[in-house]
Amino acid sequence: MSSNQTLRLLMPQWQGGNHHAYPLGARLLEWLAPKGNSPTVEVPVKPCKAPSPLRENGIVEQNALLAQLQECEKIIKHHKPKKIVVFGGDCMVEQTPISYLNQLYDGNLGVLWMDAHPDVTTPKEFHHEHAMVLGNLLGEGDPVFAAKVPVKLNPNKVMFGGLQKTTEQEIEIIQRLGMRHASPADLAHDSSAILGWIKEEKITKLFIHIDLDVLDASLFRSLLFADPTKDPSAFYHFPQGEMNLSQLARVVQDTTLVTNIVGLGITEHMPWDAIHLQNMLKDFPLLSD
Amino acid sequence: MSSNQTLRLLMPQWQGGNHHAYPLGARLLEWLAPKGNSPTVEVPVKPCKAPSPLRENGIVEQNALLAQLQECEKIIKHHKPKKIVVFGGDCMVEQTPISYLNQLYDGNLGVLWMDAHPDVTTPKEFHHEHAMVLGNLLGEGDPVFAAKVPVKLNPNKVMFGGLQKTTEQEIEIIQRLGMRHASPADLAHDSSAILGWIKEEKITKLFIHIDLDVLDASLFRSLLFADPTKDPSAFYHFPQGEMNLSQLARVVQDTTLVTNIVGLGITEHMPWDAIHLQNMLKDFPLLSD
Repeated sequence: MSSNQTLRLLMPQWQGGNHHAYPLGARLLEWLAPKGNSPTVEVPVKPCKAPSPLRENGIVEQNALLAQLQECEKIIKHHKPKKIVVFGGDCMVEQTPISYLNQLYDGNLGVLWMDAHPDVTTPKEFHHEHAMVLGNLLGEGDPVFAAKVPVKLNPNKVMFGGLQKTTEQEIEIIQRLGMRHASPADLAHDSSAILGWIKEEKITKLFIHIDLDVLDASLFRSLLFADPTKDPSAFYHFPQGEMNLSQLARVVQDTTLVTNIVGLGITEHMPWDAIHLQNMLKDFPLLSD
Repeated sequence: MSSNQTLRLLMPQWQGGNHHAYPLGARLLEWLAPKGNSPTVEVPVKPCKAPSPLRENGIVEQNALLAQLQECEKIIKHHKPKKIVVFGGDCMVEQTPISYLNQLYDGNLGVLWMDAHPDVTTPKEFHHEHAMVLGNLLGEGDPVFAAKVPVKLNPNKVMFGGLQKTTEQEIEIIQRLGMRHASPADLAHDSSAILGWIKEEKITKLFIHIDLDVLDASLFRSLLFADPTKDPSAFYHFPQGEMNLSQLARVVQDTTLVTNIVGLGITEHMPWDAIHLQNMLKDFPLLSD
């Protein structure tokens, strides 16, 4: 057991979104972040050779995702942190950290979900587990993964920021559970929508989830929707983020002034140029000398 | 003195192009490259706080560039390598490595200049030293820096690849010195233009210069011309690269089959998303714990 309060997890998980871009995205995030003094532990992840055709209970690589979730749990239980940072990887990397912190803080954890998507689908609608992670934590989502959450999130203590158009199924859950949301327009000039929620719900411990796809893909291009090898029209039917980096940074910083941040997840980083450079450099002369 | 044959230099120089994006670009290149077994030495560079207004003999930060060039020379002379890799930084990082290798190989070094620009301007036309580096090595360019090159390149042994529209002044030098060039169209399907030159000039030691701006900025966006905070029209009057990554990789690999590669420089990497992420993460909660 470490005496450190904060644990950093590097989790280069790709199976939740079934894309080879996640592992380098995770490592690059960790490399770019300030070093700090907390221990960093890498959660072992099966390597990605190609998109996986494997479906288990309708979910791509469900067994590998379960094994990695258990590995993550083991690491967290060993370190017993009070706070967790997780660098993903696909959004599913956050299930265990959030579940652990909510149990640690007696079911009172607040979760700010900065994301273009609500991540509350189920295996009926979709086959990528990363789109179900918040559902799982609320006791909805994928029953196999929801069963791994001992203390469910209180939906009053979950708020969406930067959310885009949702599907009927997503709307049903959001309305039934009464979860609040702030659109990119609501957050364009100030963070009052989110600060008001923190005050109203008396949130004293907050986890901030950032799916980088909450950002506008023309300003920040290391996103699925900005893959330079694909025709942009391939993504027109997906809701895409509209926030800029200053707005996202300001929202995060404003929350630190009114509550205690006990968790931070940064996910869905797909650094195309770095991936392409790394592949090119692998076969360059002199670099293996 | 090291017993290694190959020396890797990390040179986060920014003054040659006067832009804050170069230092992280250099470090990220080095991070992405295969690790190999050669020593890596960082050439100390004055930090970049903002674009410098300082002109000395018409050149931005000429004295700092001179000091850094001398530092680079000292490191190379200490290690006495047979081969050099240099991660820039602006293109000027290559002056000392190329000059050293040309002297080592008795003036017979071949130089393949993969770049949208020929880098043979002079202080009469421009104030950024990185646009003069090849000129300096040929005994043209900026007289202050040309004077630092003991053995000038043989212009028959220099060839441009991926070159775009050149200015009258550049055309005059290229024609007067009789240097060969292959356009992006010439290199689109095979590398024969370059392989023919290597054979004709009996080049047995080759330095490959890569200015990443030889690439199409819509496919590889970590370039000056793809700055997401600028209107693309700001760059319409600059000649921009047209090659794709596979073409560039193939050209480099084809040369390795017909000659000995003794030097490799990779320059002008401006990883916008990484820069913006790093700035945002600096002030994020938990990351300094």
